[in-house]
Amino acid sequence: MIDLRSDTVTLPSDEMRVAARDADVGDDVYGDDPTVNELEARAAEVVGMEDALYVPSGTMGNQIAARVHADPGQEALVDAKAHVYKWEVGGFAQLSGLQVRAFDGGDRAVPTPKQVRDHAREESLHVAGTGVLCLENTHNARGGVAIPKADIDAAAEAAHELDIPVHLDGARVFNACVALDEDPAAMTEHVDSVMFCLSKGLGAPVGSILAGSEAFIEQATRVRKQFGGGMRQAGIIAAPGLVALDNIDRLADDHENARVLADGLDAIEGLSVPTPDTNIVVVDSEGAGLTAQEFVGLCDDVGVLGGTFGEYHTRFTTNLNVSGADVEEAVELVAEAVESN
Amino acid sequence: MIDLRSDTVTLPSDEMRVAARDADVGDDVYGDDPTVNELEARAAEVVGMEDALYVPSGTMGNQIAARVHADPGQEALVDAKAHVYKWEVGGFAQLSGLQVRAFDGGDRAVPTPKQVRDHAREESLHVAGTGVLCLENTHNARGGVAIPKADIDAAAEAAHELDIPVHLDGARVFNACVALDEDPAAMTEHVDSVMFCLSKGLGAPVGSILAGSEAFIEQATRVRKQFGGGMRQAGIIAAPGLVALDNIDRLADDHENARVLADGLDAIEGLSVPTPDTNIVVVDSEGAGLTAQEFVGLCDDVGVLGGTFGEYHTRFTTNLNVSGADVEEAVELVAEAVESN
Amino acid sequence: MIDLRSDTVTLPSDEMRVAARDADVGDDVYGDDPTVNELEARAAEVVGMEDALYVPSGTMGNQIAARVHADPGQEALVDAKAHVYKWEVGGFAQLSGLQVRAFDGGDRAVPTPKQVRDHAREESLHVAGTGVLCLENTHNARGGVAIPKADIDAAAEAAHELDIPVHLDGARVFNACVALDEDPAAMTEHVDSVMFCLSKGLGAPVGSILAGSEAFIEQATRVRKQFGGGMRQAGIIAAPGLVALDNIDRLADDHENARVLADGLDAIEGLSVPTPDTNIVVVDSEGAGLTAQEFVGLCDDVGVLGGTFGEYHTRFTTNLNVSGADVEEAVELVAEAVESN
Amino acid sequence: MIDLRSDTVTLPSDEMRVAARDADVGDDVYGDDPTVNELEARAAEVVGMEDALYVPSGTMGNQIAARVHADPGQEALVDAKAHVYKWEVGGFAQLSGLQVRAFDGGDRAVPTPKQVRDHAREESLHVAGTGVLCLENTHNARGGVAIPKADIDAAAEAAHELDIPVHLDGARVFNACVALDEDPAAMTEHVDSVMFCLSKGLGAPVGSILAGSEAFIEQATRVRKQFGGGMRQAGIIAAPGLVALDNIDRLADDHENARVLADGLDAIEGLSVPTPDTNIVVVDSEGAGLTAQEFVGLCDDVGVLGGTFGEYHTRFTTNLNVSGADVEEAVELVAEAVESN
Repeated sequence: MIDLRSDTVTLPSDEMRVAARDADVGDDVYGDDPTVNELEARAAEVVGMEDALYVPSGTMGNQIAARVHADPGQEALVDAKAHVYKWEVGGFAQLSGLQVRAFDGGDRAVPTPKQVRDHAREESLHVAGTGVLCLENTHNARGGVAIPKADIDAAAEAAHELDIPVHLDGARVFNACVALDEDPAAMTEHVDSVMFCLSKGLGAPVGSILAGSEAFIEQATRVRKQFGGGMRQAGIIAAPGLVALDNIDRLADDHENARVLADGLDAIEGLSVPTPDTNIVVVDSEGAGLTAQEFVGLCDDVGVLGGTFGEYHTRFTTNLNVSGADVEEAVELVAEAVESN
Repeated sequence: MIDLRSDTVTLPSDEMRVAARDADVGDDVYGDDPTVNELEARAAEVVGMEDALYVPSGTMGNQIAARVHADPGQEALVDAKAHVYKWEVGGFAQLSGLQVRAFDGGDRAVPTPKQVRDHAREESLHVAGTGVLCLENTHNARGGVAIPKADIDAAAEAAHELDIPVHLDGARVFNACVALDEDPAAMTEHVDSVMFCLSKGLGAPVGSILAGSEAFIEQATRVRKQFGGGMRQAGIIAAPGLVALDNIDRLADDHENARVLADGLDAIEGLSVPTPDTNIVVVDSEGAGLTAQEFVGLCDDVGVLGGTFGEYHTRFTTNLNVSGADVEEAVELVAEAVESN
Repeated sequence: MIDLRSDTVTLPSDEMRVAARDADVGDDVYGDDPTVNELEARAAEVVGMEDALYVPSGTMGNQIAARVHADPGQEALVDAKAHVYKWEVGGFAQLSGLQVRAFDGGDRAVPTPKQVRDHAREESLHVAGTGVLCLENTHNARGGVAIPKADIDAAAEAAHELDIPVHLDGARVFNACVALDEDPAAMTEHVDSVMFCLSKGLGAPVGSILAGSEAFIEQATRVRKQFGGGMRQAGIIAAPGLVALDNIDRLADDHENARVLADGLDAIEGLSVPTPDTNIVVVDSEGAGLTAQEFVGLCDDVGVLGGTFGEYHTRFTTNLNVSGADVEEAVELVAEAVESN
Repeated sequence: MIDLRSDTVTLPSDEMRVAARDADVGDDVYGDDPTVNELEARAAEVVGMEDALYVPSGTMGNQIAARVHADPGQEALVDAKAHVYKWEVGGFAQLSGLQVRAFDGGDRAVPTPKQVRDHAREESLHVAGTGVLCLENTHNARGGVAIPKADIDAAAEAAHELDIPVHLDGARVFNACVALDEDPAAMTEHVDSVMFCLSKGLGAPVGSILAGSEAFIEQATRVRKQFGGGMRQAGIIAAPGLVALDNIDRLADDHENARVLADGLDAIEGLSVPTPDTNIVVVDSEGAGLTAQEFVGLCDDVGVLGGTFGEYHTRFTTNLNVSGADVEEAVELVAEAVESN
């Protein structure tokens, strides 16, 4: 099986496993876990923020950020295809009483300053004012688009002019940084908080980081407790997270594999596959007369796992479990499957 | 002053005032107010529903409907310019934990069956399923569009095939019915609940109606109490509401006045005004080099009151306080104001 | 029928009905209703607050106050038998995300300063801090207890020392003031907001007042809109509310009637009825071997309406619809009914 | 330092660390982690439930249970000193819109059937019906009381007669079972769901279990995702959790140590310490003229860590990091400290 369903399936390395075994731990709810503390300090440094918090998932990191930045009864401004809007089970409304207002990020995957201004709403008798702007880089549902720092900065600046704080869903922000050769701290320079995942491409088994100002993280720590994300001897999973932070550069391999995969698939009659920015490859199989469900089924039968991503679109995600050879084999297997269909 | 800000400004007639004075009343929280009971029975009949509930405002009627139809943690499917989404202070999220998902109703102001299917979402591990579809007829922010019964029916049928209940924000549903010469009960035949306003064009001082099945209204009555909408001797305001139900046919006058107003304003150099379906006239003043704020200011100075409706758009709403002569005068006053600007 | 179920059943006087008919009205959502404006100004003055807001019900007034004073995720400190906790459909949690923490007000019906300090909770990693203290005067479920100003002041002072704002559910605050010969503005001198009902003993058909600082009322106005309590030509019901404000002194009659009723019922074999502070009479029928349900049934059969108020307790509420003669007749009817049982 | 602050501070054993290193893992959000699956299956079996779910904390387990059992707008019936009410940051209101209604569990720490019936509330126009009854065994804030199965069963039966589901906060349910020599599956036989912690006395680094019917766990899995508790290769921490399940019998040592500690401290002039049921020792230092804060400070100075538990009460919690010798030393150190004070 060549598992390209998601980079969330990545398995921890031996080095991570040994780090888990040997971690120096304490009760992190009391702030006594030295490994968690080290991870949070180092993570904050990587993204150039004052402080950071270890959370069990990217979803929790995003949901905490919205809860802290905005007041219940306000609006969250998000892309129409944002992960926080499509795939976080309606958490903004249910957990934080926030109404979503969506802009169409299109191929840029990030709002223009004008879009920010047009969609931001001033509180009035009838209107729920905008309480937070959420960006996403890379942008998952738009095909792993790596958004340049300048675009992030411009959107954040437009929001700040309206006194709207900005959160970056950076589940895969290092993919963007590697693709664009940008320093992570530069990429997040003008946002107020960022969440990034240690699992996914970096390969840690569990956990994400939420980073921001000291005051923000203090509030975030309380919300984490309320959401049930306060863990005890979390150093056992924070230790592999520290190893994961050394994996940033290797994301280039996933990107190269994604390009090879995309080129290979695009050459198959009936498939149309744009060149990916990062590690997410989106295949349009309409030309082959195949719905995404049919195409995913075909691939599945030959041992290549992907996921539907719309009526005729399928997503493959390269990741550290998948080698260059795997990708070449995947192309061959899919080619045969489509041709003999 | 010719007040065209909204049909919400309509003043009660003498008949309504006398009805208020003479109303037979009781404690409606105990169900003991005969006038409220009569109004609810007659209102249900008008829209062909089993039962109805008197509520202090259209906003409350819409918010109750969403709370009853959907479960917290689900999505409400609405037009991007729906009143419930733009001008109800984020109530869906704050009061009911509902995430909004918006379709673009465009000029039709109602989703096609395909749009319903495309935007409806099935509950999954990651996805908040769709709990209610809200339609709006006439559609305020799209210029008082009167949506034909066939379009409402088609959208409702598409929703029902997915087991999604349908609420109609019919704040001005009688305007639609009069414009289209449609029976109100036919117009709401395939929706599960409808809210309509007794204030606005019908002229009652206070109150709206929420109608639906008996089971729906039973739950709605509890939610009304929780939202603080249970009133005591409400017959005093329900009595004018009964009179208001006799005002449906006279909405045709407002529509005629709106057409005259639109034609008159459209003839002014620089203004562009489409022919209205009903009583809402939307003026584009960009051609005159005037922002909406500037245009509203100009009109205000000459005694014609309207409201901004976008950067270059202004809304005028004809209503029972405004006669044909008023409308002609308004055109003249605005023409002078624009020309001498 | 002698209807003693509640003072909410009071019918508007002819003067109120005429006031309704003749009211000068406008669109109150725009702030244009002169009668509402006059009522709000006069109501604020009566309770010595900067500003006031007309709301459709006492429940809405209380719920708005909690929403404005406290942040979602905090606690509301209330009496275990408070109306806001027992009979407002769980609104604090559902509408405002507030957790209730209850003290036992006992016969005083108001917390001692020590109780305030003991139950108030400081925000911490594990603890939802206290965001508002709600008092209730008179206290309905504790038998219409009239709480002295000194006790209200002491509780409020204790809360303020902990930076906790204080809201007074004064649905029947004028009953307390009349019973204690206290000026309403003095009674509410140290609370941050007060809600009082124009319906109930004052006899208006619909509506309550929420009063507080200007900043508080500004926020309350927005929350009222979100909760669906913004009404249009509300002067029609505000006008009787103005008349109702002249009815404060007449509450003394209800109190006198309640004393006569209590004494009369207490003299009946098997009934135990403490002397009431105000207009609420609580009958213990256990000595007569009657559950409240049985006792209410007996009374009902002879034309005296009351309501169950616990397993063996029944509540009768005197009000302006009920004369001294009615009360004497009620005693006779109940006496016969119990004796012949 | 002898750390008796909480059994949450327990450090994982070497066996657990090796299990973490060697765990067979997969993406648990896809249900692909064999170690998590094994843990969930075994945990369900231990408490005799159909299915189980691994969650990052006990708080999340309890909060998910309430969300699944009850509908927003209902009430949760809890002990006045329940963990879910005192120390979970107001989650019931904020996350699930549930109003808390508290009974006084007293020394039994569990409601009598009569208390359940008296506090349960039937939904009505004014009343938020009871949606869930939460029990807690052992009961932390009442001193680690081990509640007999018969009392749990009786409370659950009373609730079920009213169609109210029952959740057991069994963070330390195995302490109760060991103390009472009761099988865990028997203890939870009549509740609908149970949460227990793998951290705390069992010594796992991270995580708790929520168990119930298959249908319950299916819904709980969605809510876990929404709350941000879905983790990826969670086998790394589930593996030590499996080892922890072998630690149940060893809780007897903690109980023995707690008795020795309690007896020793009770013998100190001025301290009053009841014999503990389980591993929680509550010291009353008022007789020594010491507030809890002062007493905790004194102990701290001599290297014995505890936590304040009221104005004059301090909690010490024995756990697997603390030996019999440690406990004897702790008694000596505290005795000296108090005497030389």
